[in-house]
Amino acid sequence: MTSQLATSFSAELPAWLRSELDELAAVPRVTLDDRMALVNYLADRNWREGNGGPFAAIVVDHTTGEIVSLGVNVVLSSSLSSMHAEVTALTLAQVAVGNWDLGADPDRELELVVNWRPCVMCYGATMWSGVKHLVVAGDGPELETLSGFDEGPMREDWAQQFEDRGISVAQDIGRDAALAVFRAYGEAETLVYNARGTSGA
Amino acid sequence: MTSQLATSFSAELPAWLRSELDELAAVPRVTLDDRMALVNYLADRNWREGNGGPFAAIVVDHTTGEIVSLGVNVVLSSSLSSMHAEVTALTLAQVAVGNWDLGADPDRELELVVNWRPCVMCYGATMWSGVKHLVVAGDGPELETLSGFDEGPMREDWAQQFEDRGISVAQDIGRDAALAVFRAYGEAETLVYNARGTSGA
Repeated sequence: MTSQLATSFSAELPAWLRSELDELAAVPRVTLDDRMALVNYLADRNWREGNGGPFAAIVVDHTTGEIVSLGVNVVLSSSLSSMHAEVTALTLAQVAVGNWDLGADPDRELELVVNWRPCVMCYGATMWSGVKHLVVAGDGPELETLSGFDEGPMREDWAQQFEDRGISVAQDIGRDAALAVFRAYGEAETLVYNARGTSGA
Repeated sequence: MTSQLATSFSAELPAWLRSELDELAAVPRVTLDDRMALVNYLADRNWREGNGGPFAAIVVDHTTGEIVSLGVNVVLSSSLSSMHAEVTALTLAQVAVGNWDLGADPDRELELVVNWRPCVMCYGATMWSGVKHLVVAGDGPELETLSGFDEGPMREDWAQQFEDRGISVAQDIGRDAALAVFRAYGEAETLVYNARGTSGA
């Protein structure tokens, strides 16, 4: 008898992003604003292309801005609920460096840049990834209000918990542009894939 | 020029588990104790085989106990920090049913069974997966004390937050056997892959 159970899985970036990857990664993103501008572009493009929610994340060299990975939310295109933008970007960065620990090289601190405070799942995924820096566009309730997503139960001291583990947090980078993406998404009445309130951003 | 960036990733169950899969999944696990006994067996086997931490999870049909997926922590063998047992089991279940939403079939409620309260990442992954039931061996600080893992910042009302989203929680199933696994792991002084305190269970 052959097994009915799955033994492996995979996920990939959508075709539109694969085709733009070289161009988008060609130049370092030197400032935090540069980095978030790319993330906001990817997030807006992603939901319009139908791959998943309006979320993107990138991993960069904290010092130089060299791009290590680009990720978007591919929950819909992969049919896997854990494939949020942060998990996708962090995992692709680990493939690129060949190590589950993105903090393994003390001479090259890596940074995750994402277009809002991570949901509770991605909060943990970031914490365990080895990145030393997190940059977010904002952290308020606006995301849930505008987009309809459930971000899950977070603690008030979420940022301090990162700092306590040696991970710096920079907030309110490219905030207005991020909110514009969520607003456009919410107004388009696209499928929010948590119709029963059980899927995060 | 060809892209230097990764565009896809994959993960698979370790060879020892693939070879036992048919036998382990052949019969339904009718009681919660039966289900957790399998999880505790897989968790203990997993760290001894060197694939990752002492953690396993399964997805079953809540009513019949039919096995939908088996997962173990494959952080070390996959070189991907997000591949905790819960993420692996939930993702393989989604591959099996062909849907990111394990709650899509109202006539077949699915259940995640795992050998301790999930870390903060897997807490969110469970919440977004569509499972309707969670069964854990325990939820206290014993896991961190015995094994050395960081489980991340959880809220006191973590179980109520599941219930609020329509996910039932059953606790203290197979607790003593789970603790024995963590104790054996801790005493073996195996690599705990969060030497800097940045990797969860």
